[in-house]
Amino acid sequence: MPGLMQDWSLTCPRILDHAARNHPTRAVVSRSVEGPIHRTTYAELRQRALTLAKRFQRYGLTEGDRVATLAWNTWRHMETWYGLLGIGAVYHTVNPRLFPDQIAWIINHAEDRLLVVDLTFVPIVEAIWKDLTSVEHVIVLTDAAHMPETSFPASPYEEWLAEADADFAWVEVDENAAAGMCYTSGTTGNPKGVVYSHRSNVLHAMAVSVPDMLSLAARDRVMPVVPLFHANGWSLAFSCPLAGAAMIMPGPRMDGEAIWELLDTEKVSLTAAVPTVWLMLLQYLEKTGRTLPHLERVVIGGSACPRAMTKAFEEVYDVRVMHAWGMTEMSPLGTVCSLKPEVADLAGEARLDLQEKQGHAPFTVEMKVTDDDGTERPWDGKTFGRLKVRGPAVTRSYFKEDKAGILDEDGFFDTGDVSHIDAHGYMQITDRAKDVIKSGGEWISTIDLENLALLHPDVAEAAVIGVAHPKWDERPLLIVVPKDGTEPGKEEILATFEGRIAKWWMPNDVIFVEEIPHTATGKIKKTALREQFSDFTFEA
Amino acid sequence: MPGLMQDWSLTCPRILDHAARNHPTRAVVSRSVEGPIHRTTYAELRQRALTLAKRFQRYGLTEGDRVATLAWNTWRHMETWYGLLGIGAVYHTVNPRLFPDQIAWIINHAEDRLLVVDLTFVPIVEAIWKDLTSVEHVIVLTDAAHMPETSFPASPYEEWLAEADADFAWVEVDENAAAGMCYTSGTTGNPKGVVYSHRSNVLHAMAVSVPDMLSLAARDRVMPVVPLFHANGWSLAFSCPLAGAAMIMPGPRMDGEAIWELLDTEKVSLTAAVPTVWLMLLQYLEKTGRTLPHLERVVIGGSACPRAMTKAFEEVYDVRVMHAWGMTEMSPLGTVCSLKPEVADLAGEARLDLQEKQGHAPFTVEMKVTDDDGTERPWDGKTFGRLKVRGPAVTRSYFKEDKAGILDEDGFFDTGDVSHIDAHGYMQITDRAKDVIKSGGEWISTIDLENLALLHPDVAEAAVIGVAHPKWDERPLLIVVPKDGTEPGKEEILATFEGRIAKWWMPNDVIFVEEIPHTATGKIKKTALREQFSDFTFEA
Repeated sequence: MPGLMQDWSLTCPRILDHAARNHPTRAVVSRSVEGPIHRTTYAELRQRALTLAKRFQRYGLTEGDRVATLAWNTWRHMETWYGLLGIGAVYHTVNPRLFPDQIAWIINHAEDRLLVVDLTFVPIVEAIWKDLTSVEHVIVLTDAAHMPETSFPASPYEEWLAEADADFAWVEVDENAAAGMCYTSGTTGNPKGVVYSHRSNVLHAMAVSVPDMLSLAARDRVMPVVPLFHANGWSLAFSCPLAGAAMIMPGPRMDGEAIWELLDTEKVSLTAAVPTVWLMLLQYLEKTGRTLPHLERVVIGGSACPRAMTKAFEEVYDVRVMHAWGMTEMSPLGTVCSLKPEVADLAGEARLDLQEKQGHAPFTVEMKVTDDDGTERPWDGKTFGRLKVRGPAVTRSYFKEDKAGILDEDGFFDTGDVSHIDAHGYMQITDRAKDVIKSGGEWISTIDLENLALLHPDVAEAAVIGVAHPKWDERPLLIVVPKDGTEPGKEEILATFEGRIAKWWMPNDVIFVEEIPHTATGKIKKTALREQFSDFTFEA
Repeated sequence: MPGLMQDWSLTCPRILDHAARNHPTRAVVSRSVEGPIHRTTYAELRQRALTLAKRFQRYGLTEGDRVATLAWNTWRHMETWYGLLGIGAVYHTVNPRLFPDQIAWIINHAEDRLLVVDLTFVPIVEAIWKDLTSVEHVIVLTDAAHMPETSFPASPYEEWLAEADADFAWVEVDENAAAGMCYTSGTTGNPKGVVYSHRSNVLHAMAVSVPDMLSLAARDRVMPVVPLFHANGWSLAFSCPLAGAAMIMPGPRMDGEAIWELLDTEKVSLTAAVPTVWLMLLQYLEKTGRTLPHLERVVIGGSACPRAMTKAFEEVYDVRVMHAWGMTEMSPLGTVCSLKPEVADLAGEARLDLQEKQGHAPFTVEMKVTDDDGTERPWDGKTFGRLKVRGPAVTRSYFKEDKAGILDEDGFFDTGDVSHIDAHGYMQITDRAKDVIKSGGEWISTIDLENLALLHPDVAEAAVIGVAHPKWDERPLLIVVPKDGTEPGKEEILATFEGRIAKWWMPNDVIFVEEIPHTATGKIKKTALREQFSDFTFEA
């Protein structure tokens, strides 16, 4: 027996329609790449997105065609997304911070037909143009006055847009059709293309808007510092217009001063970015003595939020920290650490302990932790295992890749993270699956050991890797960079762990080195360390 | 090009799964029909719903089968909904306040196979049993100790449930399959069956949970005073577990004292019901001097919230009023009057003016106002027209009724209300479409005129109807019941309108009567008035 409700597809342009109709004058403010602050509204942005859609269609773009963007967060980047979505084409955000050959590889793999770039990134296009195999034309997000000379075929966005008008209706597409793409930059192998659908974007935006997640309201003034090219822009290009929240976009400048300036002048109530950005802001505040009188909440994700950062925001600046976790494959939000009634009364260190957790999942995100055989482990806040997720905004396969094997038999996606979950659903990442040490069938978190090692006053940096062991399969090896001018002994370093870990977690040996290798984003390069110490054997 | 996200259907039992997994110990508190307060949790409620699903399946119920409920808001009624949803069967809430022959007609029309009733309503079943054509068995929501003698085949719920166990998995159903039914009691013709789907219920629950709608969080303690049998229970049986909010259910007692008691002892933060219920509560508070120290928000809908009620809640008891509008055909919420930034600073009478509006729509509800030809009218806060709505939780047709003609060519459903919408999307109902007066092509709101007439000190009650007019098609006739002992004149009554309305709105005549006919729910019976004055002619 069928339900007798209307057939109303979950397509992205409906979100902008809602904002333009119900919140027509709400501000969309951007720091432009050319310099000045630019102000528009949802009503105007929709008109320009309709115009752009008509222009894209006239160009010959059609449903399913991909268009790459190399662009900062501005109103023009937003318009580009909705203009493409409005004809069923696919926005494909490319991270301009990747190496040029990776950028070319990704664009070719996606077979992008057009490339939409900010002025900042024109040099990248110059460098890779000869390697691009599918791109026909480049649109530079500026006007004729600012248009640079290019060796590739290009048009200034404003003039290109002006060749059409807003007399256009969004093309109707199936809600399961592709809407957007974002490649994950894996540490090994080629990047993999995640393909969002209209349905996944809409459901995700609805799911993360609720009070216990991002809690987005029309009265909010939201600054997405997280770039649109980072993990689907954390969905803010959808969830903000859905709520009718004002958007404040930082354009190309993400230094402490620039961010503070917009937070202050635009009275931002909620902002979101990775810890690195907030470190720069906090340093700027400390240096200048400035404060954050308008900001109410800060969403911190992308990597674990350091305890000291939470403490500074909450205790010094009276800004509530919302620790969050997600991944490109999850559209991206998986959890937010808001306070359920069971933990609402925690204060001081106990509250900070809780806030170190990545948080709990919204409706539409299912989580489980399992052992290597896929058997579920309990939600007791200590037993950790592989974190797996399921939901309408979670990837089922990658672009052009064989579908087999990516999901488990119950349809869950393996995040590659290792975590535990407590009885109230608070999840905490304890390691990456490829780094966790398996000792005699039990798992040891390298991240926990590294954090504990840092408690010793002479330790500048610490890394833990698993090394083969004849009896226990693997055992932890602690690698330490001592602080300048110190020469700590093995025994005193290991003494730091006593009483803080189970006995069988104790590293079997300590090695002192001058330097630990890092990835481009500053993380410890454990693959290199494992290679370096592949011949290491523990003493008998 | 398809999106590559997971196929995760929007089915109702997933909501209870989410609550049981992420908010396992959150309370579901009910005043039982037998008397005592009953406490359970989402985890336990899910176990019992699984058991019930297994029991329903063993009985022989299958996908699409309908089961009627005649029941108050209690944990057992919630379990019944989810138990049915979990095998793809359909909960069909029947309003026990209808006349017994209407109840029988509705149950027969829906072809309900089982009837689940509270002890309170056993006498109704006794009265109608001989007329029921499809019901095979009755489950009484109680245990063996409280089970009455019945002349119809019946089982006590607890014992019936105990014949199964919770080792069961929800049956997978298509998200567009029927989930629930609720009949609208039209003023003319037979009741019409609205059929909710799993998808419409899930999307609706997500849409109304956001901060600018019901704003439901895990820290909330929500009391749905509105019965589950009234317009899909305002979605609270879905939106509360979705948010992990505690539920406090009033069972059979909705008098002021009983409601206050639960609000106070259970520290309810949010509650929802029709104005009649709140009138009883406010009278009780005034009489006893009691206050509402825990209550933060009250949702008022079903009929227009009187200005004095908003004033009392907000100014005397410091409870924020959320005026809301919806209808059975909309699952049911259409608008909530939360404060957007444009109106957030209003105070005093200006704020009350705003709060008299029914509010603005969430994402997934599209509204428009049109003239009789379907041409859209502007959102200017004064031009009114027929209110039409579109969305995934809006009815497209009624059970067993011809589909033709119910939606307009753009797929909008005519609400039967007349309203205007302002530039920020705030909608206000000004009349019912069948009551509005069409005078020379312009529309006159009878409700506005009635409210103004009440400003005259001698008017006890006023009704306005349209009467045929040779030149203007229709003109307003004002019918007045004077207060006891007063004999106001026509001219002085009409003087009340001067300066308050456009000249052409002025009623052409006034008639004094001793009584105005009312419907069972206390509304003015305009059909009867129009019949009574069908021969009336205005003086030349």
